[in-house]
Amino acid sequence: MHERIHHRAFTDRLMSAEQAAEFIKPGMTVAMSGFTGAGYPKSVPGALAAQMERQHAAGKDFKINVLTGASTAPELDGVLAKAEGMNLRLPYMSDPELRRRINDGNMEYMDIHLSHVAQHAWFGFYGKIDVAIVEVVGVTAEGDLIPSSSVGNNKTWLEMADKIIIEVNSQQSAAMEGMHDIYYGTALPPHRKPIDLTTVRDRIGQQYMDVDVNKIVAVVETDAPDRLSPFAPVDETSEKIADHLLTFLDSEIRAGRLSEKLLPLQSGVGNIANAVLAGLSRGGYKGLTAYTEVIQDGMLELIKDGTIEFASATSFSLSSEGIEEFNRNVDHYRKRILLRAQEISNHPEIIRRLGCIALNGMIEADIYGNVNSTNVLGSHVMNGIGGSGDFARNGYLSVFMSPSTAKGGKISGIVPMASHVDHTEHDTMILITEQGLADLRGHSPKQRAQIVIDNCAHPEYRPMLQDYFDRACKESYGKHTPHLLGEALSWHERFRQTGDMRPAN
Amino acid sequence: MHERIHHRAFTDRLMSAEQAAEFIKPGMTVAMSGFTGAGYPKSVPGALAAQMERQHAAGKDFKINVLTGASTAPELDGVLAKAEGMNLRLPYMSDPELRRRINDGNMEYMDIHLSHVAQHAWFGFYGKIDVAIVEVVGVTAEGDLIPSSSVGNNKTWLEMADKIIIEVNSQQSAAMEGMHDIYYGTALPPHRKPIDLTTVRDRIGQQYMDVDVNKIVAVVETDAPDRLSPFAPVDETSEKIADHLLTFLDSEIRAGRLSEKLLPLQSGVGNIANAVLAGLSRGGYKGLTAYTEVIQDGMLELIKDGTIEFASATSFSLSSEGIEEFNRNVDHYRKRILLRAQEISNHPEIIRRLGCIALNGMIEADIYGNVNSTNVLGSHVMNGIGGSGDFARNGYLSVFMSPSTAKGGKISGIVPMASHVDHTEHDTMILITEQGLADLRGHSPKQRAQIVIDNCAHPEYRPMLQDYFDRACKESYGKHTPHLLGEALSWHERFRQTGDMRPAN
Repeated sequence: MHERIHHRAFTDRLMSAEQAAEFIKPGMTVAMSGFTGAGYPKSVPGALAAQMERQHAAGKDFKINVLTGASTAPELDGVLAKAEGMNLRLPYMSDPELRRRINDGNMEYMDIHLSHVAQHAWFGFYGKIDVAIVEVVGVTAEGDLIPSSSVGNNKTWLEMADKIIIEVNSQQSAAMEGMHDIYYGTALPPHRKPIDLTTVRDRIGQQYMDVDVNKIVAVVETDAPDRLSPFAPVDETSEKIADHLLTFLDSEIRAGRLSEKLLPLQSGVGNIANAVLAGLSRGGYKGLTAYTEVIQDGMLELIKDGTIEFASATSFSLSSEGIEEFNRNVDHYRKRILLRAQEISNHPEIIRRLGCIALNGMIEADIYGNVNSTNVLGSHVMNGIGGSGDFARNGYLSVFMSPSTAKGGKISGIVPMASHVDHTEHDTMILITEQGLADLRGHSPKQRAQIVIDNCAHPEYRPMLQDYFDRACKESYGKHTPHLLGEALSWHERFRQTGDMRPAN
Repeated sequence: MHERIHHRAFTDRLMSAEQAAEFIKPGMTVAMSGFTGAGYPKSVPGALAAQMERQHAAGKDFKINVLTGASTAPELDGVLAKAEGMNLRLPYMSDPELRRRINDGNMEYMDIHLSHVAQHAWFGFYGKIDVAIVEVVGVTAEGDLIPSSSVGNNKTWLEMADKIIIEVNSQQSAAMEGMHDIYYGTALPPHRKPIDLTTVRDRIGQQYMDVDVNKIVAVVETDAPDRLSPFAPVDETSEKIADHLLTFLDSEIRAGRLSEKLLPLQSGVGNIANAVLAGLSRGGYKGLTAYTEVIQDGMLELIKDGTIEFASATSFSLSSEGIEEFNRNVDHYRKRILLRAQEISNHPEIIRRLGCIALNGMIEADIYGNVNSTNVLGSHVMNGIGGSGDFARNGYLSVFMSPSTAKGGKISGIVPMASHVDHTEHDTMILITEQGLADLRGHSPKQRAQIVIDNCAHPEYRPMLQDYFDRACKESYGKHTPHLLGEALSWHERFRQTGDMRPAN
């Protein structure tokens, strides 16, 4: 029993999830582990939600503020959302129940650059953190914590919280021990020093997380898998987008601007990201590196076949096959993967120094290259900005990718004016749809508009965009960024009214 | 004669501005010194403009691309704009003739974060640099260049350009020698190292700029002052804005989030900035520091009276009285001021490490805290984003300030939706108008909206904003960032139509 817990102070505080959840009171701010559906607490949130529901049934209020690393899973965001148990949630999220409540206007959500979260917590911008709930793989004989399948903000939560609840999850592979790099050199200004990380493989911290045992109020044993992230099959559209990117990278190598090892890749998750990774493998690349947030199945494959030589991230996001493959060849992966805190995986200082190639999806871009990553029709949040801003602003290249249309052609991914701006014209370099690639580097707004219309717009929307742009160039108040303000958002408004961005006739 | 030039390779290439300008041919990319109207070449651009005009009169085309540090003066941007001599200009600018041509749609302008310019040039994103024209204070016996009243991108231009024209300006104070810190440790990824600067006063480079004498094609002697920047008197509105900021800083000190020495200040120029600086002096602050772009008269005063202990910048921007004061007490200032390249003054790594307090003006903000710094009515560019993004994203605090109305009340500085977004909701913390201060930290979009409406809007616009927000909260598609897309930009459109954002009745 307790073979994952080798320290008395922890075994002494073993209890049920229900008992642990009792430490959480209405109005508290609770910081939890979890990033991209990995390493989140599996049982205390559910027990907490049950208590909330009992209180609500008794006519009492019971809501908390929830801080995490990024997205979690139904066992955390889902149950707390269903229990109407959150006042405020930050930062990234992807749970459908949670998203619905946010967009119904029933709870508050703060969308923050992932690199900002830990430091803003330290700055005191989110107030006091009452309780931290952190999943770990195990506890060493010295009382150190072996981090789980994500690091996220755990170091910060453990340091800042008044009380700590530890979940020890025996389903998490014990073989992960030693694959984490927890940096303890951060500080508040004016005491900050340079972070001495100059390659993706540099170890700058320690394997384990420190914890003050006096703050630990509960230890709960769990035995449940992470939210599995099934590998999305590559569809034709994604493959075309990936092909445009790979052709572009080849041309950058030929032009002498990139070496054959490229620069450290940051890659999102999902169909397009998988297609890009598969394409890199097919393209014969070898010895690449990744400095990114998430290691998904596709990246594991590339690490296995040598396309990627080393990957730094803050989280895994694997399917059940991916987890099996990881466990089968863990000795291979152990030498080629490091998981770091997200304040390091997403740190502007490091991303700019390494010169990352930032590859991110988007909801829409406008003709001038302003990108909307978060709010459908300017108001309905999808998942949040995540780390896309950290990488797009600071990387060597900022690439944003999307199909040129959605909902069977009823929505154009290229619009006259973005209905919400997460990445400004100052931060976007390359836009890609299945139609083609727009290289915006070195171009003024009007030049950008013509390139985006010609290369990225769907043929059905291209004449509409050209018409808008041509008339804007004639009639706009200023002709630096020509716009017809009475029309700029009319496509979105039309979709809202008719369900289609295209006019009726 | 030539008492500023102590090296034979330079005196050998002395010639007139007209002769020097002959090296510049149509279609070339020419990189020039100059930042905030300081340290720009005074005579070659004028000679070049005259040649362009002669060519144009003869029916020939003569345009070039012009890269600088930031804004220059009528003798550079003004004459080249009047001569219709530019295809493309980047980055920041403030010349009325230039602005008019950009907004008439007659030339291209690229608006880039000031920290990005040098590296993007090195990355090859702007193509080859044919000629650099750089003003210096003098040339040492070893052939090194003594930088002038701004550093800007000069190091990069000297390194990258095929041919170099040097202007030696005997009006620039020779006493500036030794006040520059030119860092030669930059590199292209993957060869970048940490920049070892941990306090504003750290010297990490050399006093002089290196130059390859073989690339020097011309040396021109000049004797002309910088564009003088008269000290703007503090008006009542600016004073109120400054008072709100100072009250806020005091409360942050009392809350223990800031020490009495604050953190390094970044401050823009103009009325509000002057009022803030004057307020800091009145407020009894001592031993503050500045890590900023520009040192104007107001900051000189604070350095003199001990309010500011040390200031790092990339440029001076003084009035004639300011220059006199500087020369009179240069030994005092020499120990308390360093001018650096703008890739260092604006470097995300340094700004985040130091934890700067970013104080910038804006054109407008929307109720959710998206800030427009550049485009009036979404289309007419004013000056450009400058370094505001470098500091707002990476600083400890990001503050944006503006009067709540403009044009005698016909324009509201707070609008339902920003007509152009330069700083997203993810990057803005504090908004200030003369009406009050909105502290957006730790708040969701809907909470932010109510705070902005209550604290920052002008009373005449407040009910209009409240009405928009209330209806948006009911009728918006998504209720995370409620918007009525058919109305969101209607205030701007109304101003365009009627000259007033307020409805007619």
